[in-house]
Amino acid sequence: MNITEYRVIYADIDAMGVVYYANYLSWFERGRTELFRDLEIPYTEVVKHGIVTPVSELTCKYHRPALYDDILQIETTVSSFKKVSIIFDYKIYRKSDRTLLVSGSTKHGFIDLDGKIVKIPAFIHEKIASLLATQESGD
Amino acid sequence: MNITEYRVIYADIDAMGVVYYANYLSWFERGRTELFRDLEIPYTEVVKHGIVTPVSELTCKYHRPALYDDILQIETTVSSFKKVSIIFDYKIYRKSDRTLLVSGSTKHGFIDLDGKIVKIPAFIHEKIASLLATQESGD
Amino acid sequence: MNITEYRVIYADIDAMGVVYYANYLSWFERGRTELFRDLEIPYTEVVKHGIVTPVSELTCKYHRPALYDDILQIETTVSSFKKVSIIFDYKIYRKSDRTLLVSGSTKHGFIDLDGKIVKIPAFIHEKIASLLATQESGD
Amino acid sequence: MNITEYRVIYADIDAMGVVYYANYLSWFERGRTELFRDLEIPYTEVVKHGIVTPVSELTCKYHRPALYDDILQIETTVSSFKKVSIIFDYKIYRKSDRTLLVSGSTKHGFIDLDGKIVKIPAFIHEKIASLLATQESGD
Repeated sequence: MNITEYRVIYADIDAMGVVYYANYLSWFERGRTELFRDLEIPYTEVVKHGIVTPVSELTCKYHRPALYDDILQIETTVSSFKKVSIIFDYKIYRKSDRTLLVSGSTKHGFIDLDGKIVKIPAFIHEKIASLLATQESGD
Repeated sequence: MNITEYRVIYADIDAMGVVYYANYLSWFERGRTELFRDLEIPYTEVVKHGIVTPVSELTCKYHRPALYDDILQIETTVSSFKKVSIIFDYKIYRKSDRTLLVSGSTKHGFIDLDGKIVKIPAFIHEKIASLLATQESGD
Repeated sequence: MNITEYRVIYADIDAMGVVYYANYLSWFERGRTELFRDLEIPYTEVVKHGIVTPVSELTCKYHRPALYDDILQIETTVSSFKKVSIIFDYKIYRKSDRTLLVSGSTKHGFIDLDGKIVKIPAFIHEKIASLLATQESGD
Repeated sequence: MNITEYRVIYADIDAMGVVYYANYLSWFERGRTELFRDLEIPYTEVVKHGIVTPVSELTCKYHRPALYDDILQIETTVSSFKKVSIIFDYKIYRKSDRTLLVSGSTKHGFIDLDGKIVKIPAFIHEKIASLLATQESGD
């Protein structure tokens, strides 16, 4: 699991004084990028291999709104991992009181530069398999 | 059903040359706002009644990417409508070839200024019920 | 001069109930893109010639705030035009009462795919020169 | 002076692979917010006094583009400070090689809840005057 922090600014909120619902998705991106970095697979490296990982499905539940100046904690895990796709789960908490604000998931395929679906490259596969083994063993 | 058009600009796309996945959500907003306007319930009117309609759940499937300069057609319908919540369905097409790019849904509650869940106000209820009747009758 | 319209949505505004100051810049982009389209130089065509036009300087004055649901009119002109750079001027009005909300300018260079500064290509030069001649003659 | 760091994500960049020009403005906001926090004037406190500080003027020069995954350093100072307005200066550097990417300034008025221009409140005035004295003395 990766935990990444982000502080909410005016750019992120709308007239109700709460974070606009689309903006959590950029923090999901931030979370999965940092999880990859933890695994020593910086996304810049993935792209150098001619592979991109577009989102194919998204779910999101909004439990409580994030407010201006809140420090958020974005918790990201890999919940499923197959030959051609990977699913990330996210939970976003307000740091000060650990209220769960938003939970969600994104499913990603692996695509080469011609737009064709490819299998997850070995160097990524091994590291994520190893992460999942660790998660299951309760770490 | 409401159909609203939007042309993609540089601000909307990312380094893969396609629309960033969060940005479709602002076009979902645009779609449901215009559907309300069609029903003669401008959202400014809803807010004047001391009611806001935050999103509680979101689903989204990304079929094909929208590209720079594409004209999009956002098609919005009401798919479910209960005492305290409403669900909108969205389909976003590329206008030039009518390719389905993104489909999704958002569920909204009705909340008063104290943050309490309230029943959908009568003036909104009637108009949406009437819309649904029209939809079912095949219009 | 090009006039392009845009309606403000929740995604555009912040907790003060007014448009966030960075968001006007995407409407400047929209304005200059449409001005190019009027000149029959769609920006997709410019890019096909291996040329991009990054912003090098920006100025912006905020006279009055744009509000939720306002229809904006973005007026774009070319105010200066040299061998290696072009300056666009923008005025954004609220349509309903023609209040001037924001005025600004952007200066752009022309860059090839290696990042080198290039002279404005002839096919663009001619069309803009012709536009400026028209502007000066009072049209 | 305040120095705040930010890492660029996909949400921030456009199809040229560089940060979209409007997005630097949200990092200017981040910079001035953190400068205020350093002065023990959190912006939430300013708002509680019924005062907001809208931007009235903006200038920005784009020297070099910020790229995906860059860690940026946003350096914010107060360059001018009068009875009814304040000017912030910003410099944004790439952390890895300290290249200057963007420089700019924003001028802000002080406005009460009725939209009237007010003088800068005493509790803010003192702290900024003290900051400026420190800056001038070479700290």
